[in-house]
Amino acid sequence: MAAFPFAIAAVDGAARTGVLKTSRGDIATPAFMPVGTAGTVKALTMGQVAATGANIILGNTVHLMLRPGSERVARLGGLHKFSGWSGPMLTDSGGFQVMSLAKLTKISEEAATFASPIDGSRHVLSPERSIAIQADHLGSDIVMQLDECIVWPSPEPRAADAMRRSARWGARCKIAFGTRHAQALFGIQQGSTFEPLRRESSERLIETGYDGYAIGGLAVGEGHQAMCDTLDYCTGFLPAHRPRYLMGVGKPIDLVEGVARGVDMFDCVLPTRAGRHGQAWTWEGSINLKSARFAEDETPLDVTSDCPASRDYTKAYLHHLVKSGEILAQVMLSWHNLAFYQTLMRSMREAIAAGRFEAFRREFHAGLRQAA
Amino acid sequence: MAAFPFAIAAVDGAARTGVLKTSRGDIATPAFMPVGTAGTVKALTMGQVAATGANIILGNTVHLMLRPGSERVARLGGLHKFSGWSGPMLTDSGGFQVMSLAKLTKISEEAATFASPIDGSRHVLSPERSIAIQADHLGSDIVMQLDECIVWPSPEPRAADAMRRSARWGARCKIAFGTRHAQALFGIQQGSTFEPLRRESSERLIETGYDGYAIGGLAVGEGHQAMCDTLDYCTGFLPAHRPRYLMGVGKPIDLVEGVARGVDMFDCVLPTRAGRHGQAWTWEGSINLKSARFAEDETPLDVTSDCPASRDYTKAYLHHLVKSGEILAQVMLSWHNLAFYQTLMRSMREAIAAGRFEAFRREFHAGLRQAA
Repeated sequence: MAAFPFAIAAVDGAARTGVLKTSRGDIATPAFMPVGTAGTVKALTMGQVAATGANIILGNTVHLMLRPGSERVARLGGLHKFSGWSGPMLTDSGGFQVMSLAKLTKISEEAATFASPIDGSRHVLSPERSIAIQADHLGSDIVMQLDECIVWPSPEPRAADAMRRSARWGARCKIAFGTRHAQALFGIQQGSTFEPLRRESSERLIETGYDGYAIGGLAVGEGHQAMCDTLDYCTGFLPAHRPRYLMGVGKPIDLVEGVARGVDMFDCVLPTRAGRHGQAWTWEGSINLKSARFAEDETPLDVTSDCPASRDYTKAYLHHLVKSGEILAQVMLSWHNLAFYQTLMRSMREAIAAGRFEAFRREFHAGLRQAA
Repeated sequence: MAAFPFAIAAVDGAARTGVLKTSRGDIATPAFMPVGTAGTVKALTMGQVAATGANIILGNTVHLMLRPGSERVARLGGLHKFSGWSGPMLTDSGGFQVMSLAKLTKISEEAATFASPIDGSRHVLSPERSIAIQADHLGSDIVMQLDECIVWPSPEPRAADAMRRSARWGARCKIAFGTRHAQALFGIQQGSTFEPLRRESSERLIETGYDGYAIGGLAVGEGHQAMCDTLDYCTGFLPAHRPRYLMGVGKPIDLVEGVARGVDMFDCVLPTRAGRHGQAWTWEGSINLKSARFAEDETPLDVTSDCPASRDYTKAYLHHLVKSGEILAQVMLSWHNLAFYQTLMRSMREAIAAGRFEAFRREFHAGLRQAA
């Protein structure tokens, strides 16, 4: 395994800050990874994404295997060359999309079989195929094991079965991944909101041994408090010296509370998806620019930001773009939200390094309360 | 009137190159003006537009009076501040949109009355109101007279009536415009494809006297050859020492043939509109990136371009974005097309300055023929 060096520079409570060194560049942690689903962080150029301060972006195995096809991406030189993102890239394994996106999915011990939502064609995703797609075709820097994802809520026996199958699939992924010096493989903890299952899952992952450890099966409808309650124990089950990645999370408050519980990496479509629907995040929570109250608001979203979308345009202009259905509304608000998320992560890294993360966390919550 | 200085640096046949100096910056001519319909050049940031080399963009009176309302734009500091474009801006008068876009339009000697396509509300656009919107509310640098636009083909008596009404409306516009030192007023030649009407229109315009002269009523369905045939005579009817602006034109071949006949300025939605539909312009004509023949084409649209959209991404990637319905496809192809148009204009300016415009024109046509 690659075991990209992970140097933790400071710890403050359970929160930590450091650097994960990959063969394509350093990732300052805690890190938020914009989601570049199908080879594009939706509505943005890679230059705009990089300008927000993102060190790493995410790609989706299932989206890319369906279109344009992972073999085609391979023939075109891999996902970095194809998409124009030269920094580190993490790919998810497809486990989550098989549950959430695909149709007519059947899961066996061997593999997941599903129908393409694009054209109905049948596809098979096994642990071995997921690794081949991620590591060989797409050329991902951080490869995720294939896992079996379940809906929330699920009964404990169902959660246990899926967690154990995920552990077995992870072991197969590790064999398929083999020895690679410029790529890393992350395992995924499952077990829903059941503490014994999260513990057992972690023990199985550690037995197999990975370069990093993800927390899956959260942000699937359980709500912020149940997520925090689960993170209270499940993060600590994972090795302290390797990066911990909370998958598919989340709102800014989720990121702050995740970091407070020792999470190092996050990804979520929320900043771009919500941005495409007129929603913008600020230190006082989220606002929807479609609201008539912004029609003559001459203030920008964030006058202190380096991001043109945050700093150089009035809310009145953004309101006009949203109301008019202009593509630029989707561009601007996606860009602003990603910039806000990166500013939030940088603020947390600085607070942890300075030993004042708890103060930062209190101020963050006070900002939200003030607006509410 | 402002009479922005217009210095013609070189003439080559009927083609000429020079600089129109405005209070917000210089416009190198022949110039192509990207259309920023409703305060946004669709899909692009103003930074991206400026990076293509555009000196001036266009705004639309009717779009902006309907949404967000020109008085609102005025309260927000004018269209430059509102949209973030600090260079020169030309606004059209609304004459063309009243014909092409509005519903239930009625034209009287006093004004055009029409229904908003957004909400059906009734609006009145008189010459005086058009000037107030453009010059006072939006703060346009180059204000266009209100004209009566007609469909093509129209019988000569109909074309004559509309041309004469346009001339009378122009004279009212000039009175309403008054004396302004930092803004210019352009008149609009009409007369369809009838030479005597184009001549009479020009005589009336010159009698009133404007800072620049536009050619309206072309690119409305008459076709490339009929447009060229009309330009053969109608450009020469206009004063040689003031800028000539061919409205709503066009394809690259139209720009080359317009310049060959003495046109200095152009605008058209084509590069952005076609870009949003997957079409890209090259020196060999236009291609549609949706075509499967680009699925594994590893060449960029224009390796010699400074524009990232033209230079840094393969046709295979752009094909993937178009096929996937990604917003980034619309961004990239709008950006590329505007960059291509600006490169075309710059090439023509350089060719005219070097006295080799005819050679350039032959090479341009040879490139198109080679591809056909």
